[in-house]
Amino acid sequence: MAAAAPPPSPTPAPAVIREDLIPTAPQVFSRIRLATNADVPHIHKLIHQMAVFERLTHLFSATESSLSTTLFPENSPPPFTTFTVFLLEVSQNPFLPIDNQNCTNFSPIHKTINLDLPVSDAEAEMFKSGGNDAVVAGFVLFFPNYSSFLAKPGFYIEDIFVRECYRRKGFGRLLLSTVAAQAAKMGYGRVEWVVLDWNVNAIKFYEEMGAQILQEWRVCRLTGGALEAFANVNI
Amino acid sequence: MAAAAPPPSPTPAPAVIREDLIPTAPQVFSRIRLATNADVPHIHKLIHQMAVFERLTHLFSATESSLSTTLFPENSPPPFTTFTVFLLEVSQNPFLPIDNQNCTNFSPIHKTINLDLPVSDAEAEMFKSGGNDAVVAGFVLFFPNYSSFLAKPGFYIEDIFVRECYRRKGFGRLLLSTVAAQAAKMGYGRVEWVVLDWNVNAIKFYEEMGAQILQEWRVCRLTGGALEAFANVNI
Repeated sequence: MAAAAPPPSPTPAPAVIREDLIPTAPQVFSRIRLATNADVPHIHKLIHQMAVFERLTHLFSATESSLSTTLFPENSPPPFTTFTVFLLEVSQNPFLPIDNQNCTNFSPIHKTINLDLPVSDAEAEMFKSGGNDAVVAGFVLFFPNYSSFLAKPGFYIEDIFVRECYRRKGFGRLLLSTVAAQAAKMGYGRVEWVVLDWNVNAIKFYEEMGAQILQEWRVCRLTGGALEAFANVNI
Repeated sequence: MAAAAPPPSPTPAPAVIREDLIPTAPQVFSRIRLATNADVPHIHKLIHQMAVFERLTHLFSATESSLSTTLFPENSPPPFTTFTVFLLEVSQNPFLPIDNQNCTNFSPIHKTINLDLPVSDAEAEMFKSGGNDAVVAGFVLFFPNYSSFLAKPGFYIEDIFVRECYRRKGFGRLLLSTVAAQAAKMGYGRVEWVVLDWNVNAIKFYEEMGAQILQEWRVCRLTGGALEAFANVNI
């Protein structure tokens, strides 16, 4: 004889889900927009941090005033035709639209990033941007270059930098792809930049995104007294 | 007793100098001026010769039309604020002044060069420039770049090229020093360019003129399908 079936288990009572106790993946809102003269103090600090990272502070002599004069001169030409800066901002809250960038033919890029862990930004106060909790997290500075073989302009990226606590979260890739998208939109042929040969993480990152590393070319630089001297040889 | 002094030698008769028989060092007149749209056919041929020299003809796709559109667009900005070409011309005769370059804030550079041997230019007809016997012998293409460490613009030289029969006569140096002089005049901080690491003659020449060769930096390039693909990653 078959054993009597055990009595059915009691239906479990529905759990009370307290949403405030669920561990959610932290999220940040990010935006890339054109920098303006008002951003110069932040740009100056970012360039200095980049010089420290590249072990090149002995070459750093920019001031807020000299950056302002050269990056945002009076009657400056439209963005993308000359030196151009994109600023990366992050916030716990969605960004509001920017009115005054409508006339520049560039719509800010918005992206929501899911993080593994919340970012602890010890420099948040120093890099505060705008009225809410947004901070400046990085930048890219670029300008048109030219390939005579292609007979096409391109963009040369002079600097790309993300502050340390925001690295390895896709922001560098976001900055680079924003420049690449602008180049593609304008029908440009190339985006180029340089990398230090010991910066293997950066080289790996660039190769993974499809960039070629040109091993045969070396940069030549004439500057300071040598530039002055050579400028006068035929006078 | 001292031997009698020998009679003085007869005074030699003054030689009859026939100036038409004296082998004179050959001389050429050279000029560096801003290129215009009318120079595009020459510029196109020079860029192609440069691609052959650099073993990079597989990257060459410029046409006269695409060069004209991109280097000399309608309403193009003033020289030195964007892509700029200096053309090197040589002639057996002095150059006449150019009227229409007075408004460009650049006065052509003239230099008379003494040669060891006359130049035999097999391509003289193809590179004929203007009404007299002048020929185009080379060019330099450059545009503004920017150093954020210095907070100063500079010039980046994309191409510098002298046709083979005019090499080793100081013309490359003349082209480079003309760009350096323009940079110094404008208060710019640097002149930069790249060189192939196997081109030891060029490297020696650049070092002798005071340039640093930056051994640690590598050029990264995103182009073609990789550029298109990467431009779309965040869309």
